[in-house]
Amino acid sequence: MNIIIDAMGGDNAPLAPLQGAAAAVTELGVSITAVGDEALLKKTAQANSISLNGITFVHAADVIGMDEDATDVVRKRPNSSLAIALGLLKEGKGDALVSAGSTGALLVGATLLVGRIKGIKRAAIGSVMPGAENPWMLIDCGANADCRAEQLVQFGVMGSAYMEKVMGVNSPRVSLANNGAEETKGGQLQQEAYALLKESGLNFAGNIEARDIPFGKTDVVVCDGFTGNIILKLEEGVAKMFSGMLKKMFYKNTKTKLAGLAMKSEMGGFKKSFDYSEYGGAPLLGIKRPVIKAHGSSNADAIKNALRQAKTCAEKDVSGAIEAWISQHKQDKKQEGAQDD
Amino acid sequence: MNIIIDAMGGDNAPLAPLQGAAAAVTELGVSITAVGDEALLKKTAQANSISLNGITFVHAADVIGMDEDATDVVRKRPNSSLAIALGLLKEGKGDALVSAGSTGALLVGATLLVGRIKGIKRAAIGSVMPGAENPWMLIDCGANADCRAEQLVQFGVMGSAYMEKVMGVNSPRVSLANNGAEETKGGQLQQEAYALLKESGLNFAGNIEARDIPFGKTDVVVCDGFTGNIILKLEEGVAKMFSGMLKKMFYKNTKTKLAGLAMKSEMGGFKKSFDYSEYGGAPLLGIKRPVIKAHGSSNADAIKNALRQAKTCAEKDVSGAIEAWISQHKQDKKQEGAQDD
Repeated sequence: MNIIIDAMGGDNAPLAPLQGAAAAVTELGVSITAVGDEALLKKTAQANSISLNGITFVHAADVIGMDEDATDVVRKRPNSSLAIALGLLKEGKGDALVSAGSTGALLVGATLLVGRIKGIKRAAIGSVMPGAENPWMLIDCGANADCRAEQLVQFGVMGSAYMEKVMGVNSPRVSLANNGAEETKGGQLQQEAYALLKESGLNFAGNIEARDIPFGKTDVVVCDGFTGNIILKLEEGVAKMFSGMLKKMFYKNTKTKLAGLAMKSEMGGFKKSFDYSEYGGAPLLGIKRPVIKAHGSSNADAIKNALRQAKTCAEKDVSGAIEAWISQHKQDKKQEGAQDD
Repeated sequence: MNIIIDAMGGDNAPLAPLQGAAAAVTELGVSITAVGDEALLKKTAQANSISLNGITFVHAADVIGMDEDATDVVRKRPNSSLAIALGLLKEGKGDALVSAGSTGALLVGATLLVGRIKGIKRAAIGSVMPGAENPWMLIDCGANADCRAEQLVQFGVMGSAYMEKVMGVNSPRVSLANNGAEETKGGQLQQEAYALLKESGLNFAGNIEARDIPFGKTDVVVCDGFTGNIILKLEEGVAKMFSGMLKKMFYKNTKTKLAGLAMKSEMGGFKKSFDYSEYGGAPLLGIKRPVIKAHGSSNADAIKNALRQAKTCAEKDVSGAIEAWISQHKQDKKQEGAQDD
């Protein structure tokens, strides 16, 4: 198993990608192809005593910045580490790819250079979120602001495949993010998606209201990318506000400071339970081969976790499971059509 | 000043509405028209020693349940407390109306029986939310799942009028809930709304990302009702999950229990700072006269606060401010049109 990493992507590149790669070689038994400025990579490895055992370099002279406009940037910058890494993935020079660089560039680049699974209308970004009862996948997290109902069903298929194959959930429950529990709730998009999901063959658990989402009573929450971005970022914002207020409360006076000390280990666990980087990076689903977007601020450990996630996606063939479902579903539709005649 | 109350609406009706009404008469110097089953209201008042000073009853034989389908229910149930209360408001028998009953029925009923302000396309539900820096209004919170860009601008006008007149904010900042800060972000709806808001004459502060929403760095957050429902309910859900986890942490062992005791008063303030009932009920904006939806679970105090809010809306003429803006804006448009010719 060989994993390709965009060694220039992310706030802590190239150090964190190199450290993560070295750890992955030792701990996960994979080999790594690291794409980037070869001289810089070698110098960084040497300066930080990082073993290059199991790591192969592929040189890339250019880097795509985090804030560059995503549209077509990968195609216009063929010498960027991301474009070269995606090219290697397409050619089968690796089984999966990890990047902590720009999400938009990765998404557009993966779609253009690696390609979508046959029958998939749009790739989507999934994110495994912590829940009070169980982790669950939010999909789409922001790749597609405007969606059609059919796409939402495909997001359900992708999320279901990921939760089953990577997270080991048997027959994942798929829910539709909506403004009420009843079938008639939502706008036109949600009403149409509800009807399609009901007939989809997925383990559709109906609508989920936003107030129930943090509790994780389902395995996959399906929504358009605009709504997904709102859910993801609002949870992040509320968690940040809570942490700030708690900290202030504990720093108020001597009594509360002592209470804070007594609660220190519990507070650590509390913080961790809202950290959605716990479950690795965000998989780009619907692409022919596994692509993992690690958080921009990933440290070595987060990169290693993303590499593990990429490895699992490849081993369990998540893309293959999605393709099989889509193709089977098409045949079913055709047969139904034939019977109707 | 006379405020009409649907005395049969809400989980704690008719006791809480009666107690709240009596408190409002004493504390706010208003008179109250309480609509409902007169015999029951009188019996409840007597059994609970509630003074009926300043309270007039109008009999209604019927009540609309919390879960009844909203569409046209008010028109089909002319003897319901809500229909009669709205009729009184329309006839000018009161200056404002408060109900803790079904949101859907109140919205449809207010639109049909009292009517929208001239030029307003759709009424919307606003909710003043606690923020780390300042309270802010979320509008629309769920009245209109599918919206057009023009409606979002009108929500901005309504929210701005409310925050200025009722909350005393000078030139309220209006932001558009979006999936990024840049002008080009969002789906078609957000992009169109951004362009219109920029030219609207409102104090438009651009896009606000969901991660910044809880901090309240703006005064009005504008969105379609689907997104508004997601934001409102997700904040509620995350707050509930946090509280549950904190409670569990403090109950873990003797050390943490002692810490919990030390933090008791701080935790009370913490909880309160997430309680969006702090700022009263949710105003239905865009209706000709002030209508306040009190929370279904309102106790006497919450009802009294909603009555105060209704009084302020009437005194400060929020509806008039909205009407004036819309009418002025139309004239501006016409003049622009004339100049263009």
